[in-house]
Formats: sequence, structure tokens, C-alpha cells
Amino acid sequence: MTRVHNFCAGPCTLPVSVLEQLGDQMADFDESGMSLVEMSHRSSEYDEVHHRTLDLLRSLCSVPDDFDVLLIQGGATLQFAMIPMNLLSVGDTAGHAVTGTWGKGAFADGSAVGDVYAAWHGEQHNYARMPLADELDVREGTRYVHVTSNETIGGIRMPDLYALDVPQVADMSSDFLTREIPWDNYDLVYGGAQKNLGPAGVAVVFIRKSLMDPKCTHLPKYLRYDVHAEADSLANTPPMFSIWAMGLMLAWIDTNGGVAGMQQRAAERSSTLYDLIDSSDGFYRSPVAKGDRSHTNIVFRLGDADLEATFLTQAEQHGLMNLKGHRSVGGIRASVYNALPTESVEALADYMRSFAGGQA
Amino acid sequence: MTRVHNFCAGPCTLPVSVLEQLGDQMADFDESGMSLVEMSHRSSEYDEVHHRTLDLLRSLCSVPDDFDVLLIQGGATLQFAMIPMNLLSVGDTAGHAVTGTWGKGAFADGSAVGDVYAAWHGEQHNYARMPLADELDVREGTRYVHVTSNETIGGIRMPDLYALDVPQVADMSSDFLTREIPWDNYDLVYGGAQKNLGPAGVAVVFIRKSLMDPKCTHLPKYLRYDVHAEADSLANTPPMFSIWAMGLMLAWIDTNGGVAGMQQRAAERSSTLYDLIDSSDGFYRSPVAKGDRSHTNIVFRLGDADLEATFLTQAEQHGLMNLKGHRSVGGIRASVYNALPTESVEALADYMRSFAGGQA
Repeated sequence: MTRVHNFCAGPCTLPVSVLEQLGDQMADFDESGMSLVEMSHRSSEYDEVHHRTLDLLRSLCSVPDDFDVLLIQGGATLQFAMIPMNLLSVGDTAGHAVTGTWGKGAFADGSAVGDVYAAWHGEQHNYARMPLADELDVREGTRYVHVTSNETIGGIRMPDLYALDVPQVADMSSDFLTREIPWDNYDLVYGGAQKNLGPAGVAVVFIRKSLMDPKCTHLPKYLRYDVHAEADSLANTPPMFSIWAMGLMLAWIDTNGGVAGMQQRAAERSSTLYDLIDSSDGFYRSPVAKGDRSHTNIVFRLGDADLEATFLTQAEQHGLMNLKGHRSVGGIRASVYNALPTESVEALADYMRSFAGGQA
Repeated sequence: MTRVHNFCAGPCTLPVSVLEQLGDQMADFDESGMSLVEMSHRSSEYDEVHHRTLDLLRSLCSVPDDFDVLLIQGGATLQFAMIPMNLLSVGDTAGHAVTGTWGKGAFADGSAVGDVYAAWHGEQHNYARMPLADELDVREGTRYVHVTSNETIGGIRMPDLYALDVPQVADMSSDFLTREIPWDNYDLVYGGAQKNLGPAGVAVVFIRKSLMDPKCTHLPKYLRYDVHAEADSLANTPPMFSIWAMGLMLAWIDTNGGVAGMQQRAAERSSTLYDLIDSSDGFYRSPVAKGDRSHTNIVFRLGDADLEATFLTQAEQHGLMNLKGHRSVGGIRASVYNALPTESVEALADYMRSFAGGQA
């Protein structure tokens, strides 16, 4: 089997060992005569997979006892709706740090549900940097401040997570499990699985238990955090494959140094690429303020669109796939999520040096 | 590989050929050097899988051109919320035929969102039969009547889908693609995939296009049908594995006679079991009115709870799995969804005859 180097920003590369386990067990799970995805979600076999996944999330992320760990369908996008629906009561308001495409999504849905405002807006900064904590305009009566710790498309990252006087809610989809979470400052942390944790189809929500009292009984069942919490995320049929695969990926993270190990990997691998960009005499250019550069989504530009197109075409010929920047911004983007082998980053760096040399 | 006979009511048995394709391709999809679940959901490879699945749903179900086919996460449960959110305007009301556990779920969430009423309630009938069309109390100003065409837990089924003067919305989760849909009478038909169509993680929604005009711009993005429709269900990262697997299962249905073939299979296989029950001199008893017996969930009772426990234990020794009735009602339930091999039904019938004989 030939593996390509997959820098995809959406669904992520997975460890080959995880894919092979999924493939080998697909038609017969642990000699049960059934696939796991054919079993009842109330079966002992699935229950063990489900709770092992929840337990791994809790231990890897050092989740405090007063938080619940939830697995919910609909991606981070459904969370954009559920967060204000569950957390904002009449008279409450929420401030949003609008730092890029994902921050805009959360802000738009917050506005559809309740009274929210932009505590900071990146438009005037071309979404090329994150705000400092003291740049946030946090108004009186703010229930929470919503932040996006890493913007996948802009390639920017909060270098330090804030300590504010009001609770925060964080979308960590694109840097989940690549950094420690300072729990004291957060009421809710969430993210889709498909960047750092496994295949698409499930989102992880860490939520402070006290937020679910009183219960949100005015909402329909699927949209209530307390319903998912009370049923250990088994209130209805869960996305069993996505949870099974995430559990295998989390076990892989655990044996590869945990979150601290992933954090170091992300810092080293992104440095390899940023150092190369910065020492290229302007052949490659990073549009992002140095201190705010993402450790997981490395975006850069070349001389012009034609040169970028040539770079991408030749990259594919070297087995370096999915390096095209998001269609809304263009350029090049290398996403280096947890499961990407370090050899893939080295192969990209070699290619970048060679491409720049060939054009000189 | 030894396969058991899997009568699970929740996630369903899948054809071995489908599981083997998923397993064989899990680490390397079509020699791309990647798994499909590692690819961008904007890639040409995934796009082909996605649209083939949508096209198969449209052709197999003879979906009219003025309907959209949507793939949404959250199961039928999230649809319980989205339907009234999208379809009920201020001043509208909806009537619900409350025919069992699933009908109650849809009614409860409808009540959380808008002004709905019970057009018929099965409680007084112990949920053992469906209402006749003329038993429904359809009030003036009713926007739609919500029906559950088959109740998984009670094992009851609407023998004929209604033709009413008002549009209907139907939850067909547990008899999806086992019967034709009389489109003229429906505004929206939906169901989770995990009973007749594939693994859990995705729901199918057929919706009349005119319902999305005007757009539901007051709702958050994930909860808007028009957003999913305009993006061909790619507005955010879809549950790629579930859709891939469903596409393979739909292709299997297509080569095995389509919906007409599945309808005939369901009628024949359920008859095998009901005939055996009815000719057992009361050893096995069906609690369901004859005309309303489900073709996919065959529930029955034995003399007492001890005998039922013995029946279940010995069934497992014969490789007949997941026959226990839902915990809310007890008894025995054999779910015979589309992909269950006919040999499994024959093996169950043989065992039932032998067990009754042994007790005589």
C-alpha cells in the first residue's frame, strides 16, 4: 500500500494502524460474528467502546470532575446553535471574538438565537492576527465570551488562551488535543473530531456541569446538553463508527505522548515550515503575524497565482496532497494535525526547498 | 468468518458484501493512497460517493423533482426539532398521530417548539394498533399531520399510508425503503439510516422544495433545511463514513429488486413468522391487531417472563442474537430489516418450532 502525504484541512490523516484496525474488524468485531456498526448501541461490546472513548477524552485532556464529556452529531456547526440556546437566558448577552471564518459562523448563529455582540472583529486586521485579551470589549452583563482558539482558514492561533473575568466558550476544532486547556477560565470547550481526533461525524463537548442546572426543558431533546449528559451521550443512537474510530485515535495519542507530546510535535513541525518560509528571502511569505501563527494550519503565499498553481501541481507529483489554500483566500495551506507523520512534514520541507531552488 | 443471525432493532445487519467493501477499502480508497474518511469532503472522490448516494435515494424512492434529498446528522431525533422549527410559522398548528414511543418523541419536541396537538393518541389502545384515517381529529388551520409509519417498539405499522386533505410529515425510520411513498400526500418524509439503509450517523430527509420558500433565515445554520438543500448536504463536513456505507447499501438494494423487491421480502418474511405465531395454539402470542402488524419488527410473547428468558438464552446458543424486546415493553422482538438474510428468518422459524415442540 502506497500512502500519500495528506495535508488536508478538513477530515484529517489518521494513523495507518488505526485504519488497519478499522478495516480488519469491519466485518467481524472481536469475533462476535457482527460488525460493531451492526450492533445495538445498548450492547456490552459497543458500550465498552463508547465509554473507553469518553474515558480517554477525560484523561488525555485532564477534564475536571465538574465537567461532563459529551459526544454530539452535527459538527462544530450544530454547537454554534446549541451553545447560545442552552447558555443564554432572557436578558443575557454574549461577546464574540470574531477572528475568522469559524468565529464568524459562531457569531452569526449566536445572533440568530440571542443577544450577542462582537467583542472584537478581525475584519479590520484582515483576519491575520488574534486580539490581545485587553483588546476585547467585554460589556457588562456578559454571560460568556466566545473564542476560536485556532482559525483553520486564516492559519492564526491564540498563542495563550485568555484568563478573563467572565467565563469563556472555546471552539478548539482545529487545535484540539494539541494544547492544554486552562479549565478555570472555561465553561464549555468544543470541537469537531475530523481535524485532530478522527473521522467526521461527531463533535466533542466539554461542559461545566453547573451550566445544566436548571435544565433546558424548553428545548427539543437533541438540542439539550442535559439530555446528552444524563444519558452518557446515548440518548439516541450515536454515530458508532465515528466514536469507535475516535477511540482508536485517542489511544494512539495516548501512546504517543498524550496532549503534551502532541503539543511539542505541533510546535516543532510548524517551526520547521515557518523557519523555511522566513529564511526563503521572500520566495515564500507568511501573511500571519509571527506570534499568532497556527501550529496546525501553516498558510503561505508564493510570488503570484501562477507560481502557486505550479507549486501545487508539482507537489501532487511528489505525493504531497491537499495543499491548496481555502477557496475563500487562495494561496497554500499545509495542515499538520496530530496524526500526520513527521516524515510528511520533512517531505514537504524538502520539496519547498527544491522548488524554490529550481525557480531561482 | 462465522456470522450470527442479527435481529437487532437499532443499528441493523448489513450485507456481508457491503462490510467487506468497507473493510477492504478502509486504509486505501480506490488506490488513492488515502482512506475516504481522510479525504476532504470537497474532493472529487468523496463528491462522487456523496452524489451517487443522493442519486440512489432519489431513484430507488422515485422522489419527484419538486423534492430535495437531504443528509443530516442527529438521527430522526434532531428531525423531531427541525421539522416544527422550519415548517411552523406563528399561528400555525400541527396534528400528531401519537402511535408509540417514536410518535411520542416527535410530539414532545413539536410541543417544545410550537403549537401542536394530538390528532390521535394510542395510549388508550395500549399502542397496539394504528388509527384509521377517519379517526384522526384534524383541526382547522393544521399546517401538517405528523405520522410514524412503523413503530419499532410496539411492532405496529400503518397498513396503508393516509391520503388526507392536509399535508403529512412521516417518520419512516423503521420501514424506510420497504414500501413505496405516495408522494402527493407528503410534504416531508424522513428517517434515520441505521435500520434499513446502513450504519448510524446520518438521517435522510425528503422535503418538498416549496417548503423552503421563504427561507428560514431566523434559524441557526445547521437547523435550516434550505441551507442543507442549497449546499447538496455539504454545508459543513458531512458524516462521510455513514454516507459512503449507505451508498453501498443502497446499491445492494438496487441490485436486489429495489423498493418493490424489499417490500415483497418484508411481506413474505414477516408472514413466515406471524403464520408460525398464529398457528402455535397460543404458545406464541402477537399483541398487535392483525391488520397493523409490522413487516419489519415482529414482536411476540410467550407464556411468562421466565419462559421468555429461557427462549432468549437458548436462541443465543443457536446464534440468534438481539431478540429481546425493548426494555420498556419486554417480550420478544425480531427485527427483519432490508439487509437481514432470509436464512436468518428461516433459522429463527426453525428454532421457534423446535422450542415450542420441546416445551410441549
